[in-house]
Amino acid sequence: MAATKHLTFGVILSGCGFRDGSEIHEATLLLLALDRAGVHAVCFAPDMAQARVIDHLTGEAEMTAAPRSVLAESARLARGSIRPLTRLVLEAGTLDGLAFPGGFGAALNLSDYGQAGARMRVRQEVAVAIEAMHAAQKPQGFICIAPVLAARVLGQHQPRLTIGSDEQTAADLEAMGAIHVAAPVDGVIVDQQNRLASTPAYMLAHRISEVERGVTRLVDTLVAMALG
Amino acid sequence: MAATKHLTFGVILSGCGFRDGSEIHEATLLLLALDRAGVHAVCFAPDMAQARVIDHLTGEAEMTAAPRSVLAESARLARGSIRPLTRLVLEAGTLDGLAFPGGFGAALNLSDYGQAGARMRVRQEVAVAIEAMHAAQKPQGFICIAPVLAARVLGQHQPRLTIGSDEQTAADLEAMGAIHVAAPVDGVIVDQQNRLASTPAYMLAHRISEVERGVTRLVDTLVAMALG
Repeated sequence: MAATKHLTFGVILSGCGFRDGSEIHEATLLLLALDRAGVHAVCFAPDMAQARVIDHLTGEAEMTAAPRSVLAESARLARGSIRPLTRLVLEAGTLDGLAFPGGFGAALNLSDYGQAGARMRVRQEVAVAIEAMHAAQKPQGFICIAPVLAARVLGQHQPRLTIGSDEQTAADLEAMGAIHVAAPVDGVIVDQQNRLASTPAYMLAHRISEVERGVTRLVDTLVAMALG
Repeated sequence: MAATKHLTFGVILSGCGFRDGSEIHEATLLLLALDRAGVHAVCFAPDMAQARVIDHLTGEAEMTAAPRSVLAESARLARGSIRPLTRLVLEAGTLDGLAFPGGFGAALNLSDYGQAGARMRVRQEVAVAIEAMHAAQKPQGFICIAPVLAARVLGQHQPRLTIGSDEQTAADLEAMGAIHVAAPVDGVIVDQQNRLASTPAYMLAHRISEVERGVTRLVDTLVAMALG
């Protein structure tokens, strides 16, 4: 699918690795789907120390390890081409859409959902950008656990979102004002009113090809919204 | 393309990030292409400290940073499902093929090409595995800079390989006994005699979709060899 108008989307990263940052396959396949759709992707990440550094071999927190920069680790995923999140607000007007891969970084670095659950707060630049894009009726996509960000920021608009089928997370979304809609691993839940799309990806996936199908459908939905 | 026989391929990782480990997009798209082809992927990485840790935002070496484990960083790409490279030799008999993504980790952690050029040495477990697979006529795929490993280990068999068009790297391959064949960004050079396939990926790519095309063709070639 090639976009007839040249579109630019922001991609918000939160580190590099599913236990303490962006889920790598979701982020990579998001960049692939955007490129295939003819959309130019601009990556952003917060210039902050990671909330945690997790050893992905053992799953244990590396308590003694040197802190890592969310921006510098996200740069691994973006091959160096990334901007600090403070720039997002300045550049939001030039973007045709936003997309958030999952990974626990969305719940640790972009918000504190990992600690606070439904009482979570979203990092200020992220909240402002989501609100601004929503007000401008520009499409936004949320993958895996990232729909918690949309639920918190846009809860008063009753956004329709999916995180797959996990009951606790779905209950948290609804406690923040969202309407949770169960979806299969490669399904996309579309909220035309609020210009949102979400897909479960590794909330449910056992295979990377399942993630690719859902993320590609998500991007195709966002592109159609941006052009529509 | 679905394999009629159930195939298992080993994927050799070297960290997580193109400046000091495996190139993330190449590794992810390799895992995607294998999954789509119905091939079960088993990831391996050396249990050693990274030769370098590079800040991917600035490109500078983090001289003062804590060392990182190649195995634990590679586990980010493999979502925790990874084995130490010492297991590769034990399990080589169960594998139907091997594949190596690029990234500078192939030249820093799997070998010392980054320092020694054509006088490089390949890490022992890697060299033994490549030789064993070659002797058993099992297919092996090399992406981006990884063909230097095949050139060094299999040089006496005059392997036909590509790293795209970089003259110095091509000259180094030939100095080690390989025949370098120039290829476009998404081209695959096949050596039927030695059961090898290689593709330039980010040696030439400017877009992630170019990498996806080359890596998918590489995997389809390897699967056809494994089934043929």
